[in-house]
Amino acid sequence: MSAWLLPDHIADVLPSEARHIEELRRALLDAARAHGYELVQPPLLEHLDSLLTGTGEALDLQTFKLVDQLSGRTLGLRADTTAQVARIDAHLLNRSGLTRLCYCGPVLHTRSERPLASREPLQFGAELYGHAGPEADLEVIELALACLRAAGMRRMVLDCGDVRIVDALLDGLQLPAALVQRLHAALAAKDVATLREAGAALPAATLRALLALTELHGDASVLEQAERVLPPSAALQRALADLRRLAQSVQQALATSLDGSHASGGARAPDSAATKAAIDIEIGFDLADLRGYAYYTGLRFSIFAAAHPGQVPQELVRGGRYDEVGAVFGRCRPAAGFSLDLKELVAVLPRPAPQKAICAPWGHDAALRRAIADLRAQGEVVLCALPGHEHEVEEFECDRALVPHDGAWVLQALPPSP
Amino acid sequence: MSAWLLPDHIADVLPSEARHIEELRRALLDAARAHGYELVQPPLLEHLDSLLTGTGEALDLQTFKLVDQLSGRTLGLRADTTAQVARIDAHLLNRSGLTRLCYCGPVLHTRSERPLASREPLQFGAELYGHAGPEADLEVIELALACLRAAGMRRMVLDCGDVRIVDALLDGLQLPAALVQRLHAALAAKDVATLREAGAALPAATLRALLALTELHGDASVLEQAERVLPPSAALQRALADLRRLAQSVQQALATSLDGSHASGGARAPDSAATKAAIDIEIGFDLADLRGYAYYTGLRFSIFAAAHPGQVPQELVRGGRYDEVGAVFGRCRPAAGFSLDLKELVAVLPRPAPQKAICAPWGHDAALRRAIADLRAQGEVVLCALPGHEHEVEEFECDRALVPHDGAWVLQALPPSP
Repeated sequence: MSAWLLPDHIADVLPSEARHIEELRRALLDAARAHGYELVQPPLLEHLDSLLTGTGEALDLQTFKLVDQLSGRTLGLRADTTAQVARIDAHLLNRSGLTRLCYCGPVLHTRSERPLASREPLQFGAELYGHAGPEADLEVIELALACLRAAGMRRMVLDCGDVRIVDALLDGLQLPAALVQRLHAALAAKDVATLREAGAALPAATLRALLALTELHGDASVLEQAERVLPPSAALQRALADLRRLAQSVQQALATSLDGSHASGGARAPDSAATKAAIDIEIGFDLADLRGYAYYTGLRFSIFAAAHPGQVPQELVRGGRYDEVGAVFGRCRPAAGFSLDLKELVAVLPRPAPQKAICAPWGHDAALRRAIADLRAQGEVVLCALPGHEHEVEEFECDRALVPHDGAWVLQALPPSP
Repeated sequence: MSAWLLPDHIADVLPSEARHIEELRRALLDAARAHGYELVQPPLLEHLDSLLTGTGEALDLQTFKLVDQLSGRTLGLRADTTAQVARIDAHLLNRSGLTRLCYCGPVLHTRSERPLASREPLQFGAELYGHAGPEADLEVIELALACLRAAGMRRMVLDCGDVRIVDALLDGLQLPAALVQRLHAALAAKDVATLREAGAALPAATLRALLALTELHGDASVLEQAERVLPPSAALQRALADLRRLAQSVQQALATSLDGSHASGGARAPDSAATKAAIDIEIGFDLADLRGYAYYTGLRFSIFAAAHPGQVPQELVRGGRYDEVGAVFGRCRPAAGFSLDLKELVAVLPRPAPQKAICAPWGHDAALRRAIADLRAQGEVVLCALPGHEHEVEEFECDRALVPHDGAWVLQALPPSP
């Protein structure tokens, strides 16, 4: 095989995409910092126990394993960052009050999550520890939306669910863990056939409720429908009421923070020219949503890029509440947060304009060198044509040249390249 | 073992250090971009052959190996980025003219390179392809110095060498590869005892020359001394002449680009108060310097943080010329560049002042929410005290509070925390 062939679902990021990703990375980290989220950088490698305890089978299968020559112990390459940040909150910082943390770095997957997804996502995320109330859920959703807006997203769909709804339906049945896992997977995939098969031995009312869940996605009317069709319980009522209140808070928050923008409770705004540039965030619900890792304990949300008719909307952000995630590190405290893959985000955004640059000749002339240094200090990109390379087509878009004029170095506009 | 214990030489980067590293990362990438270096992001995982062919034994030993479940092939976690960027230049971009590329990302080492070094350096580097002349060497050295200056370094030592000097001394002897490796290692470590032992069977003049090399480090007088004590050859003359010319160019370039700064040819400027804030770059030579990976073919340079008397200077940057590095990818063209570890760089720089922040109450009030959004849009950090957390000591330095005043929200200065 040729030395330049890369493994499947592993790719280089080339200049124009890399520049866009770097711009997004800065915009997202700046948005998180403005909200008081402090950056941390957990390591790529950890003892497997630390990475995987309490996080479920899906994450285990996703994790590359290798042996540490120093200790002989098995290490894992992180496939997700949430448990690492919980470890930092629990053990290293160990603060009594609110802790807001964010991170941005690569994770590695043994298999790609989706047919075209990379096995090396660049994961950005934020976590809020120490507050059990709905204000924390609202804050992380608002931050996730602020991050996407800072990245240039204009039309988004926020989908909310709550794992306590399924928990309430299965409560008291004492099912084997493997069956619960199978039911969860079937619900996550909205796979009715598997759900019927796996749930054959369940009480008829429970199976009926699980089947009903697969239909309970859409606008706010889903919550009323759930109250009508699902077997009532205090836990279910609480979860539904929390979801309703959260959706209202998000709408209210968006209405005050987005001038001239539109946050709708499910109904889409007409696609007129006037609303196109504005922010348009649709809020919906998906009560069967159980996709992803097993650490969620309450609210779950996803944010999708709004799709054109006939397209499948692409999920960009996944988040929610995972109050137990620090337990393995000796500190079980409330936690809410979200994460996204910058490589997926960049793929749904228009590529920015090419970098403008200034061409300069190469030379030892002190005035030339000073002129170049000054332009660079002002944030300009200055390319020196090394001797023999004066007539090369540069990859940058050189729109100006540094030329000698009356004993000084001045900028001259260049005609656009053909 | 406790779940929060990390492997040896692997560590979390906590908030204040992470913020400093992120600032440096941006400063370095911006400096590289201003010089026309385009960002690329090669993957963390590659087929082992691609990562290691032609790069020597040291890099092989440093590289973690694991198995790809998709293909059954052995993958390596990159321990260095230079070969990957050469692959991108050779295969993906395949431009005929100059190509300037830079990168910034983690690499992983099976063993730490130095007693206190991390096994997960954050490697930043830049590479210039397509120009064999000394202008490319000068450009990468100037860029490396510009990067360190952008990071806040003020006093640096640039040490230059050239692997062609040792090559010239061993030329024509047809030594076994293992012996050459042993001699190189002994020279790199300036280990005279091993050099005598390994070189016992060499011609007496060659051994004498190799032993002399271990003494040939210091200011520009080293080059004259080398001409006197080393066996003359055309190749040696050329390498020494190139080094002399390069040092002169660097000094000249620094003199024009650094106002009020000081670039000395070996002699240190007096440490007066007036020169302390200025840039001070000492240029020296080390003709036995062969440390690091095996891909160098000509000039090599290191940049050290200038040490106080009695301290060992810390090497921060290593670079040089590696014209053969793209050969395995089917394209052997001139290449020069450098790399550094941001985690080592941050350790020698003073920590920046704590992040200032604004405390704000939590609430649904539209005017409050708009005031917070406005402050954040201006780049301020605004922390909302969620209900019940109003009296917590925040980790940020809150120097202002957002308070209601006459029906509006205004900023109020806070006394410094005790």
